[in-house]
Amino acid sequence: MTIVHDQAGTWLREAGAAARAAAAALARAGAAARDAALRAAAAALRANRAGILAANEADLAGFSGTDAFRDRLALTPERIEAMARGLEEIAALPDPLARVLAEWTRPNGLRIQRIPQPIGVIGMIYESRPNVGADAAGICLKSGNAVILRGGSESFASAGAIQAAIAAGLAEAGLPASSVQVAPGTDRAYVAAMLAGAGAIDLIIPRGGRGLVERVQAEARVPVLAHAEGLCHTYVHAAAEPAMARRVLANAKMRRTGICGATETLLIDAAIAPSLLPLLVADLAALGCTFRADARARAIVPSLPPADAADFDTEWLDAILSVKVVDGPDAALAHIARHGSEHTDAIITEDAAVAERFLADLDSAVGIWNASTQFCDGGEFGFGAEIGIATGRVHARGPVGPEQLTTFRYVVRGSGQIRP
Amino acid sequence: MTIVHDQAGTWLREAGAAARAAAAALARAGAAARDAALRAAAAALRANRAGILAANEADLAGFSGTDAFRDRLALTPERIEAMARGLEEIAALPDPLARVLAEWTRPNGLRIQRIPQPIGVIGMIYESRPNVGADAAGICLKSGNAVILRGGSESFASAGAIQAAIAAGLAEAGLPASSVQVAPGTDRAYVAAMLAGAGAIDLIIPRGGRGLVERVQAEARVPVLAHAEGLCHTYVHAAAEPAMARRVLANAKMRRTGICGATETLLIDAAIAPSLLPLLVADLAALGCTFRADARARAIVPSLPPADAADFDTEWLDAILSVKVVDGPDAALAHIARHGSEHTDAIITEDAAVAERFLADLDSAVGIWNASTQFCDGGEFGFGAEIGIATGRVHARGPVGPEQLTTFRYVVRGSGQIRP
Repeated sequence: MTIVHDQAGTWLREAGAAARAAAAALARAGAAARDAALRAAAAALRANRAGILAANEADLAGFSGTDAFRDRLALTPERIEAMARGLEEIAALPDPLARVLAEWTRPNGLRIQRIPQPIGVIGMIYESRPNVGADAAGICLKSGNAVILRGGSESFASAGAIQAAIAAGLAEAGLPASSVQVAPGTDRAYVAAMLAGAGAIDLIIPRGGRGLVERVQAEARVPVLAHAEGLCHTYVHAAAEPAMARRVLANAKMRRTGICGATETLLIDAAIAPSLLPLLVADLAALGCTFRADARARAIVPSLPPADAADFDTEWLDAILSVKVVDGPDAALAHIARHGSEHTDAIITEDAAVAERFLADLDSAVGIWNASTQFCDGGEFGFGAEIGIATGRVHARGPVGPEQLTTFRYVVRGSGQIRP
Repeated sequence: MTIVHDQAGTWLREAGAAARAAAAALARAGAAARDAALRAAAAALRANRAGILAANEADLAGFSGTDAFRDRLALTPERIEAMARGLEEIAALPDPLARVLAEWTRPNGLRIQRIPQPIGVIGMIYESRPNVGADAAGICLKSGNAVILRGGSESFASAGAIQAAIAAGLAEAGLPASSVQVAPGTDRAYVAAMLAGAGAIDLIIPRGGRGLVERVQAEARVPVLAHAEGLCHTYVHAAAEPAMARRVLANAKMRRTGICGATETLLIDAAIAPSLLPLLVADLAALGCTFRADARARAIVPSLPPADAADFDTEWLDAILSVKVVDGPDAALAHIARHGSEHTDAIITEDAAVAERFLADLDSAVGIWNASTQFCDGGEFGFGAEIGIATGRVHARGPVGPEQLTTFRYVVRGSGQIRP
C-alpha cells in the first residue's frame, strides 16, 4: 500500500510538472493551435473507433455492476461520433481568452486591464461515462488549461484509448501530449495523490455521485469546483397561467429525471392549488411520476402518498416529486432556503412584480421565471459545452463552460509612474 | 482541550447560523442601508475612541513581543480616525452588487443575465494590526457579506472594542449585529473550528505572515482566498530609459520594503547592465539598500555581495535586493516563472513590442510596464479599499476589494419554454 502511495506521489509530481509546462505552451500557442488540436482529436477519435470500442469491450468484460451502470459505461459508434462532434463544437466556440474583462485609467495615467488567463492545471475526477473524459479534455484545452484525468476504474481501458486519440490530435497541432494526461492505474492512491497535489494541480473538478463529490471535498488540499446535488424547486405562484404551469412542470420533472436540473419539489400556492394541483398530478402521473405530498396537498388530492420529514431534503433523480402547498412567495423562498441546494429554482407566474422579487431574493446559482428548471445546462445557456454545474459559492456558479475555466490577471501600462 | 474544542465547535455552528441569517438580511437590505451602517460605524468608532484606546492599552499591557510588533498592535487617536475614515470611504464606493455582468438572449427567447451576489459568510483570520478587522468588516458589509473575525490573541480586547462600534453602526441602520462577529476567545480551537466550518463559512481569508497563511491553507476544509508571499521582480530591459529605470526601481524597492508589492529581485539585461547597473546600485545604496548579486552582476559592480542559491527564492520584505543579469526577455520570464510567486512583476522598457510580449507571456496576478511594482494595491487600482492581495489562481487574483468579494448567479426570464 505504501509502495503504491509512493508511486502515486511520484507520478503526480512528474505529471504535474509536465502539465505545468504544457499549460504554458497551450497559453502561448494561441487559439488557432488549440482549436486545430481539438479538430484533429475529433478526427483521431473517428479514425481509432475500432480500437476505442475494443478497449471498451475489455472494460465491459470485467464489469459486474447494474445494467444502468453498464449502459453508461458502454461505448457505441454513435457515442464515439458524439464525442468527436462535441470536440468540433468546442473548437468552433469563441476563444474564452480573447476578451478584455474590464479596463480603466487611473488619475495618475496608469492604464489597467483585467484580462482572462487559464487556471493552469485542472484535475478531473469522474465516474463511469467515458465521454466525460473527452468533454473535459476539450473544454480544458479550449480554455488553455492542461488536465489530468482520473476516470472510474471500470472505464480504465476506454479512458486510455480516448486519451490516445486526443494525444494524436495534440501532436498534429504541435502541442504537448502532456496537455491531457490520464492517471496510470486504477488504484485509489492516484486519486489521493491528486487531492493532495497543491502546487501540481490548481483546481480539482469532481463529477459523479454525491459520495464521490463529498469524498473529494473532504480530502482535497487544493481548491475544488464541486458539482454537488441539485435539489431544484418549481414554485407555482397563485397568478400562474395554468396551461403554462402544466407544460413547464411536466418538462421540469419528467423530461429527464436523472439530471441535476430536474425539479424534485413542487411548491404550489394555496390560492391556486385546489383548481390546479389535481391537473398537475394527473399530467405527471400519466408520465409515470409518483408523489410524496404534505398534508395540505393531500387534503386537495387525497390519493397522494404522504411525505415524511426527509422527503423534502431528498434529491430523487427519479420519477418522484415532493409536493407542498405554501402561502405565497415568502413561504416558498423560506422553504427553498432551508431545503434547497442553491442549484436551480423556478417560479411560474404571470405577475412580473412577484417574479422579480422572487428572482431578487433567491440565492441559487440559477433562478428561472416561467421556464423549465432543466434549462440549467451549459449547452442551453449557449456556452457550447459544460464540464459540470458548479454548486459552490466561490469562483464559478452554475454551468461551467470554457469561460468559467479561466481566471484573470491585470496588465498595467504606465509611463514611469512611481507610488507616492 | 476537548472541552475547548467542543465549545469552539458549538460557537461556530451558532455564529455561522446567525451570520447566515445576517447575510440574507444584508443582501435584502439594499446598498443604502449597508452604506448607512458603515457611516454609523465610523461615527461610533470616533465616539468610542476612549474605550477603544483603553482596550488597546490592556492588550499592550499584556504584550511582550518586539517593538515592531508592538507598533503594529498599538492604536492611537490618529489610527482610530483613519479606521473611521476608511469605513466612510468604503461607504462612498459604488455598490458592487448593482451591476449586470453579462446578458444575452437565447434563440428560444430565454433572456439570461449574470448578476453579482454576495459570497455569504466570510471567515477572516488575521494577525496583530487591529485596523485590519475594521477594514475587513467594512469591505464585507459593502459587498453584502457577513463576516466572522478572528484576530491575533494579542489584540483580543482591541478587536472586541472595534467590533462593538461596528455593531452600534449596524444597529443604527437596522441591520443585524451578527453581520460582524468576533471569535469569543483567544484559544486556537476557534481558528480550528472556523477552518473546519464547511456549511457555516463560505470563504476563509487569512491575512498575516507566511506561517499563518500556510497553516490555514493546509488545514482549511472550506475555500481559502490566500494572501501569500509577493516575490516581485522588476526587469530592466536593454531598451529601458535609464532615468525612468532609476526612478521606478528606487520606488519599487525602497518606498516601503515590508509590503508584498515591493520588488525583491532586479533582473537587468546584459546589454544595458554595464552602463546602468552601477547607477541603480548607487541610487539604492544611498537609500540604505543592500544587495545579493549573481556573478555577472558582480563582474560589473565588484563591491556587490554574492547571492547564494536561496536568495532568488527569498521574499526579503526588507532593504535587500537580489540582482541578476539576464540575456533578454525570455530569460527574464523563465527566471520569474521559476522563482516568482505570481504576484506582481514589472518590465521597464521603451520598446512597446517587447513590453507587450512580456505582458502577454507573464502569468502573474499583476504585470506592469514602466511603473513601480508597489502600485499593486486596491487603493491604487481604484478599488477604494482592499482586504488583501490574492495569490491563488481561483476566484480572485490581485487586489481584493468589494467587487472581488462577490460571486455571481444567473437569472433566466422566459415565457413558458420547455426543454426539448
